Amino acid sequence: MKAEILKENLKNGLNVVEKIVGKNLSLPILDNVLISAEDNFLSLSSTDLETAIKLWILTKIIKKGKVVVPAKFLSSFIALLPNEKIVLEEKSQGLYVECKSFKNKIQGFNPEEFPLIPEFKNLEFLEVDNKKFCQGLAQIVDLPSPSQSRPEISGIYFIFSKNIMKIVATDSFRLAEKNITLDEAVKKDISFILPQKPAREIINTLGEKEGKLKIYFSANQTMFEFPMKEADHPQVQITSRLIEGEYPNYEEIIPKKFKTHVVIKRDEFLNQIKAASLFSGRINEVKIKINPAGKEVEIFAESPDIGESMSSIPAKIEGESIEASFNHKFLTDGLLNIRSSEVIFDLSKEEGPCILKPVGDASYIYVVMPIKST
Amino acid sequence: MKAEILKENLKNGLNVVEKIVGKNLSLPILDNVLISAEDNFLSLSSTDLETAIKLWILTKIIKKGKVVVPAKFLSSFIALLPNEKIVLEEKSQGLYVECKSFKNKIQGFNPEEFPLIPEFKNLEFLEVDNKKFCQGLAQIVDLPSPSQSRPEISGIYFIFSKNIMKIVATDSFRLAEKNITLDEAVKKDISFILPQKPAREIINTLGEKEGKLKIYFSANQTMFEFPMKEADHPQVQITSRLIEGEYPNYEEIIPKKFKTHVVIKRDEFLNQIKAASLFSGRINEVKIKINPAGKEVEIFAESPDIGESMSSIPAKIEGESIEASFNHKFLTDGLLNIRSSEVIFDLSKEEGPCILKPVGDASYIYVVMPIKST
Repeated sequence: MKAEILKENLKNGLNVVEKIVGKNLSLPILDNVLISAEDNFLSLSSTDLETAIKLWILTKIIKKGKVVVPAKFLSSFIALLPNEKIVLEEKSQGLYVECKSFKNKIQGFNPEEFPLIPEFKNLEFLEVDNKKFCQGLAQIVDLPSPSQSRPEISGIYFIFSKNIMKIVATDSFRLAEKNITLDEAVKKDISFILPQKPAREIINTLGEKEGKLKIYFSANQTMFEFPMKEADHPQVQITSRLIEGEYPNYEEIIPKKFKTHVVIKRDEFLNQIKAASLFSGRINEVKIKINPAGKEVEIFAESPDIGESMSSIPAKIEGESIEASFNHKFLTDGLLNIRSSEVIFDLSKEEGPCILKPVGDASYIYVVMPIKST
Repeated sequence: MKAEILKENLKNGLNVVEKIVGKNLSLPILDNVLISAEDNFLSLSSTDLETAIKLWILTKIIKKGKVVVPAKFLSSFIALLPNEKIVLEEKSQGLYVECKSFKNKIQGFNPEEFPLIPEFKNLEFLEVDNKKFCQGLAQIVDLPSPSQSRPEISGIYFIFSKNIMKIVATDSFRLAEKNITLDEAVKKDISFILPQKPAREIINTLGEKEGKLKIYFSANQTMFEFPMKEADHPQVQITSRLIEGEYPNYEEIIPKKFKTHVVIKRDEFLNQIKAASLFSGRINEVKIKINPAGKEVEIFAESPDIGESMSSIPAKIEGESIEASFNHKFLTDGLLNIRSSEVIFDLSKEEGPCILKPVGDASYIYVVMPIKST
């Protein structure tokens, strides 16, 4: 293998593929990046056996071939090179890196030992606006927590029906749902559960890119593919296994009727909950009192060792006076996922689930359970 | 105690004093800040029993008095308040904090239990340009490493003689000396050893301030005092105990004669050493070869598992061809402490100490020992 590439292009590519590389004591080949020189393209691949990333860089290929070298090491080293053209060459499983004033050899591994990354050829796919999808995914991706007993809720639930894509996440204390419109309706309804890690990698790697994202899927795998601007060729592919099992019937949990409807300034609400949280002690409890007469929302927290906190915010309120306690983390997480300047806060009676959602955007809903009073 | 203060001023003050506050399980009073309302000033103090910081904020005092509350907690809480006027009031050892839409009580401690911070009244002091001093101190402060067996070299050595202040630091592998000119000559020569922690706090707290720094000292204590701009009153005082013992006769170590004199571009030299360091393996060894015929400096590193690195930089060279090996960390530390675009690199024969210093600034010298060849 021999190729010429600009330092900046190689560095950017390595920054992407090194993200899923950890320190694998039992399978050290996974610490590496597979560099492959194909017609006109240099491809970089990495995998942790659950998630794989492959990306292509358009560059000058002198000789086709493959080399496998430590990913994080190569990335740190390339970052220090001057911003010029680099020549990469494979000789007896070593990678020779040469550029202005530098000559280096990096010890590599046998490319045959590198795990195969599944390919999705001639399969059906769906298309979605990439930025809209990544922004929606970012609003729900942090909700799941690793669950040994209920692996199905440790991932992100995708549902495609007609021209709507729903993505859902929960940790059983709160739940978020985001709706994204597809350009074309799907032929038949489809759903699957994607693990949290590849979902995060999609946001990290593709989050800022303008264009269409292709979503491929088979019975137990999925692939997210973003195309190259300059050529009719994929630029990045993120492949993942799917989580087996059935996602709970989450729609039952979303309340339809409320006792009190509040519209409140998002930043001020978030800030006052954060301040109260400092006083909330071990169980993270902050008390929210909706006061329709005073047209304000009051926030309380106290803990004998620390002290007491009381604050208030003017708000538009419809319905009855109500008091409920929440884990402050669950409220701040929800508010952080909402970007509008005002939020809707709907409370149900008898300690039922409450809702946070942006004003002027019906595509997102965040459901949170109050703390039961003892 | 009762006082009115702008949120921003209180927050900035707390950010300074909270820095030396840790988590003291054996003496929890040290986790606190002492807030004292004096005539026209609110003072904040913290101490870890070795270093103490006290600062004053000019503000409206309604009632004099003291309160002691958790420093990091108060700082996190004040940061979340809106940018307005805050009323602080002490009632039965609790601090009541009130501002627009917030009412809070923070549980405090008995101010009598807070350690006394030594005062330096009517004592002699020296004056030095603050920014010049802090910049010089920053060039040497990271050299010492904690030493149980030789506590005297774990600190920064200060020597005042005539109108020169020398500050020196070493970890026995390398040594740095900085000379700073005083406005007035000292009446008699003085020297002391300051621990590393207060030296770092001086840089963190005062580093950016324009003005004169006063240095007070007694047999076993020292105090660095920076004045207020608006009033004839101290703004910040950093007090520290001194380290006992005699500093080694370090001047003997600084070589006077060299075999080879090199002038080289600082950024490129630093960058190539960093790149080579990745290939240097366990003992951190990089080899430097001075090549007067080729008018270049060559840098090598290798390690069987990782690979090999070779790079070169054009340089102005006087003297003989020479080869020496260094711990790359010791070279990069020295280069990072030098800000000039070109550095002087002087090498002695027979693995003697070498020198790095800025071109055009005789006030700083960094001495480094090569690795003995085996």
